[in-house]
Amino acid sequence: MNSKLHGLVAATHTPFATDGSLNLSIVERQAEFIASVGVATVFVGGSTGESASLALQERLELTERWSEVLKGTSTKLVVHVGTNCLNDACDLARSAQTHGAAAIAALSPSYFKPRSLDDLVECCALIASSAPALPFYFYDIPALTGVSFSMPDFLHVASTRIPSLAGIKYTNSDLMAYQFCLDVQDGRYDIPWGVDEALLAALAVGATGAVGSSYNFAAPVYQRLIRAFEAGDLASARLEQRRSIELIRLLARYGYMAAAKATMGFIGVEVGEPRLPSSRLATGQASKLRGDLESIGYFDWGLR
Amino acid sequence: MNSKLHGLVAATHTPFATDGSLNLSIVERQAEFIASVGVATVFVGGSTGESASLALQERLELTERWSEVLKGTSTKLVVHVGTNCLNDACDLARSAQTHGAAAIAALSPSYFKPRSLDDLVECCALIASSAPALPFYFYDIPALTGVSFSMPDFLHVASTRIPSLAGIKYTNSDLMAYQFCLDVQDGRYDIPWGVDEALLAALAVGATGAVGSSYNFAAPVYQRLIRAFEAGDLASARLEQRRSIELIRLLARYGYMAAAKATMGFIGVEVGEPRLPSSRLATGQASKLRGDLESIGYFDWGLR
Amino acid sequence: MNSKLHGLVAATHTPFATDGSLNLSIVERQAEFIASVGVATVFVGGSTGESASLALQERLELTERWSEVLKGTSTKLVVHVGTNCLNDACDLARSAQTHGAAAIAALSPSYFKPRSLDDLVECCALIASSAPALPFYFYDIPALTGVSFSMPDFLHVASTRIPSLAGIKYTNSDLMAYQFCLDVQDGRYDIPWGVDEALLAALAVGATGAVGSSYNFAAPVYQRLIRAFEAGDLASARLEQRRSIELIRLLARYGYMAAAKATMGFIGVEVGEPRLPSSRLATGQASKLRGDLESIGYFDWGLR
Amino acid sequence: MNSKLHGLVAATHTPFATDGSLNLSIVERQAEFIASVGVATVFVGGSTGESASLALQERLELTERWSEVLKGTSTKLVVHVGTNCLNDACDLARSAQTHGAAAIAALSPSYFKPRSLDDLVECCALIASSAPALPFYFYDIPALTGVSFSMPDFLHVASTRIPSLAGIKYTNSDLMAYQFCLDVQDGRYDIPWGVDEALLAALAVGATGAVGSSYNFAAPVYQRLIRAFEAGDLASARLEQRRSIELIRLLARYGYMAAAKATMGFIGVEVGEPRLPSSRLATGQASKLRGDLESIGYFDWGLR
Repeated sequence: MNSKLHGLVAATHTPFATDGSLNLSIVERQAEFIASVGVATVFVGGSTGESASLALQERLELTERWSEVLKGTSTKLVVHVGTNCLNDACDLARSAQTHGAAAIAALSPSYFKPRSLDDLVECCALIASSAPALPFYFYDIPALTGVSFSMPDFLHVASTRIPSLAGIKYTNSDLMAYQFCLDVQDGRYDIPWGVDEALLAALAVGATGAVGSSYNFAAPVYQRLIRAFEAGDLASARLEQRRSIELIRLLARYGYMAAAKATMGFIGVEVGEPRLPSSRLATGQASKLRGDLESIGYFDWGLR
Repeated sequence: MNSKLHGLVAATHTPFATDGSLNLSIVERQAEFIASVGVATVFVGGSTGESASLALQERLELTERWSEVLKGTSTKLVVHVGTNCLNDACDLARSAQTHGAAAIAALSPSYFKPRSLDDLVECCALIASSAPALPFYFYDIPALTGVSFSMPDFLHVASTRIPSLAGIKYTNSDLMAYQFCLDVQDGRYDIPWGVDEALLAALAVGATGAVGSSYNFAAPVYQRLIRAFEAGDLASARLEQRRSIELIRLLARYGYMAAAKATMGFIGVEVGEPRLPSSRLATGQASKLRGDLESIGYFDWGLR
Repeated sequence: MNSKLHGLVAATHTPFATDGSLNLSIVERQAEFIASVGVATVFVGGSTGESASLALQERLELTERWSEVLKGTSTKLVVHVGTNCLNDACDLARSAQTHGAAAIAALSPSYFKPRSLDDLVECCALIASSAPALPFYFYDIPALTGVSFSMPDFLHVASTRIPSLAGIKYTNSDLMAYQFCLDVQDGRYDIPWGVDEALLAALAVGATGAVGSSYNFAAPVYQRLIRAFEAGDLASARLEQRRSIELIRLLARYGYMAAAKATMGFIGVEVGEPRLPSSRLATGQASKLRGDLESIGYFDWGLR
Repeated sequence: MNSKLHGLVAATHTPFATDGSLNLSIVERQAEFIASVGVATVFVGGSTGESASLALQERLELTERWSEVLKGTSTKLVVHVGTNCLNDACDLARSAQTHGAAAIAALSPSYFKPRSLDDLVECCALIASSAPALPFYFYDIPALTGVSFSMPDFLHVASTRIPSLAGIKYTNSDLMAYQFCLDVQDGRYDIPWGVDEALLAALAVGATGAVGSSYNFAAPVYQRLIRAFEAGDLASARLEQRRSIELIRLLARYGYMAAAKATMGFIGVEVGEPRLPSSRLATGQASKLRGDLESIGYFDWGLR
């Protein structure tokens, strides 16, 4: 199970048609684009993938489609399988294993919340045991789940109960706990960083991989950031991080999900609009957004 | 659509077998028991029903089973259809209408949260339009969803956008907003109260119906409470509310969901244990709980 | 120490001059007005009194002035002495005792928060011991302090450690815990209710006294509410509560503190504007507020 | 006003005698110790200094004492003057200017919270205008104040309203906003970092100064961290950050404030125990803490 998620991992959008239905015909284009900008791994059906707004059947089809599209390519497939209903999560895990995923990840149930770390680990163990051949990542994203346990403690407890435990997709700005996680059991676990706008900080404390939504549409920025960091050129690394922040703040002003999906469209990957409860761009906002992206130079520095 | 939810409405538990699978054979017993204690309406697949932990298919089967069981009885069926995936919610709404439910209710998506009241109303409108013949209740439960909008404002906005809007299942301790909701458009909307342990307070400000989990296993307490309140005998009403609070606090000490389901078993309605992420009673806790229930007199005053 | 805070207690505003300095010359007018509308007790230097924005010396002078003004009258003086610095709180407690207050109250330190109920009780014990002859009320207001412990548990723990413990000023909408507090040790403690807009609910579960800011400028509404409730006339009681809610919501739209103080001015009690960080009414807002108060009929039903 | 807070700034403890009274005789020892480990600036009366638990008079005396002790030394004095009562904050600011402080800082009132960024800026402007000759730092610490505004926006708004604005003491883990603050108006403002356990991350994105409590008792760790970072030796920098995290987590397990003050005592700077509401170490805990500090090697790597 030595398959660490090094480098950038794109948390892909789920493509929808105009009527809101799943539009799997776009997956091939997504895969091509991501490969063309040098991103080697996709994280499918996560928060960026609006998995909470998908039916189980849709998530299964999405997994299957990505698996087909990536067959014979060098792109690795990580499937997110978490949801409130653990039976569904187990079905998704089984399907990911069947379809040759490289790893699975799952977040905590969040409507009903585990009351203890033990309960959370029990949930994860159940899911992981449905795909025992795949590395399992816990997806920690307390800002969305409202479930907040110590991640170093999670690793300690889960290490004895989840044989396939690979690490944590860490979407949490607590860098103290992050660095502690990196050190657990002499660095045994893989802790890909999940806060794009603080990637430079995470690299400094030891991150070697990162999963995020902006790696779909701005990977070159982060690749330059990483290269500059590795070369000890902090001034350049900061410049790239600053661009990343400016881009993310701009999208957030329009409603992040809708603006990010519109941006994908601007660059030729028509993933459509988000589903409710995420709001869509109001009339006229898309062209205004495009203008703002031009103003900050995104079409120059964001794509190559 | 004049079908206000007067009196007590039992938010039913979803019965599971020992292996955690859906155990629909128990529904008949649940219905009998509830009718035997004089509760006229059931609210199926809500929070008490662990709907977030059920697969869509299970929720559809649960609706169908309750519909069959209640056929020919005087018990009214309200089906909760809310979930993160609005397509699933619409499927559930259609099924509820097909199976002769008296009304539907839906909570807000909670993993992704509506960013504005308008977005929330749009979600509700979509669901309600899938079962246009059924009264629609919004299920406000901010402590679990983390979605908190002004409910009087919700009624104002939704009244023009949801033709089948019937009211709000109000599981929220804000009595100021509650009283305002009761007054919107001269009391047009039905606002069943959802905080069992504060029923007396809600009656004082004008509640005429209540939906809750403890009406499954302690309805007589609340029936006496209501009768005493209506007779102006506040001392007796307070005594019954005190019993209700003592019971709920006792169950909460053991983990409310597991303890409430165990209590159902003690009184002959074997709904099984909860699913993860809700924790189960540890070994030996069930008999300890039974002893504590005896100590507070529950088996005397709770059942008749 | 049998001096329960029955009926309405006005949490008085602290009067400021135009330059923001303490304007003690107004206290006499405040006392007259409150007595003229039949309110028998004042709670000085609480949240309504902007105590957090006062210097220690100002709080001492305020206590002294109220004590002088009330000398020889039948109005009872309760002094709030809580603050982040416990030494200051002890000084205030001593001063309250010296100046003949009927009771003291103190909220929890809130910048640094007690980490356990024991620590909170220790803080209260220290303050209470500085005025051992005066009944001590803990002032529970978690929405402002962010300190939230079980109040029934507080009474149990504090009962053995604070000889002068009289009860809790309960500004907390949790009616379940409220009713439990009323029952602790057979109703030994006095638990005046602190949520004006839910007074009717609190009466239903057993409240006998209430402390609040709107009893300064709308006492007749609440007096009719209480009389109607006691006469079993719930329809009238609800009407008065509805007026209270409408008034409070109106003031909140303007910024509650500034609007409430402006309202005091409209009725002839010139308590001035609030201090920073509370915002003042913007230019033109005062006359707009007065118009809105007229529209809802406040000047008719709020004052007599 | 070009006096950026470069390097490490020790947020000093306030020394108390056994009876809890202010023990100013220790200040000289604190100043010597801090200078001996190469820390060039002190931040007096901040959160570490338990300012919220001090009377105004005590804070004035503390300022005066530090001013006297530092006279003729090269150590710079920054005085924290923030508190709920803005009049007190202004008195403290005036005193800081009189006593030759290098700068002042103030946090937001937190019992009553500013409702808008404008209100917050108005509070700061009032304080800053009381010491117009001194650089003014806003002290952003949302985890304790509960006041959370965008700090880049704060700088934009405050830059036009506070002539002496020098920057922000940034005790907030949001690195995205931090990097944005560093860039406002071409890096005009000084933004010392306030989260000791994430110093390495902050250096990566551009921090040049840091204020914190652990720079009192573990400055050498951070000095080596900074030197390693500047030399491009990230492995060594991470090792030092790891020590810092281990130390801080250890202290937090005992109650951070009490454990940190006890640690000062272990190294010969007897600052006493904290005041309520901070809890003290229980009997026997001090020696256990000392043992734990030995176990992690603190007495070897923490002091030189």
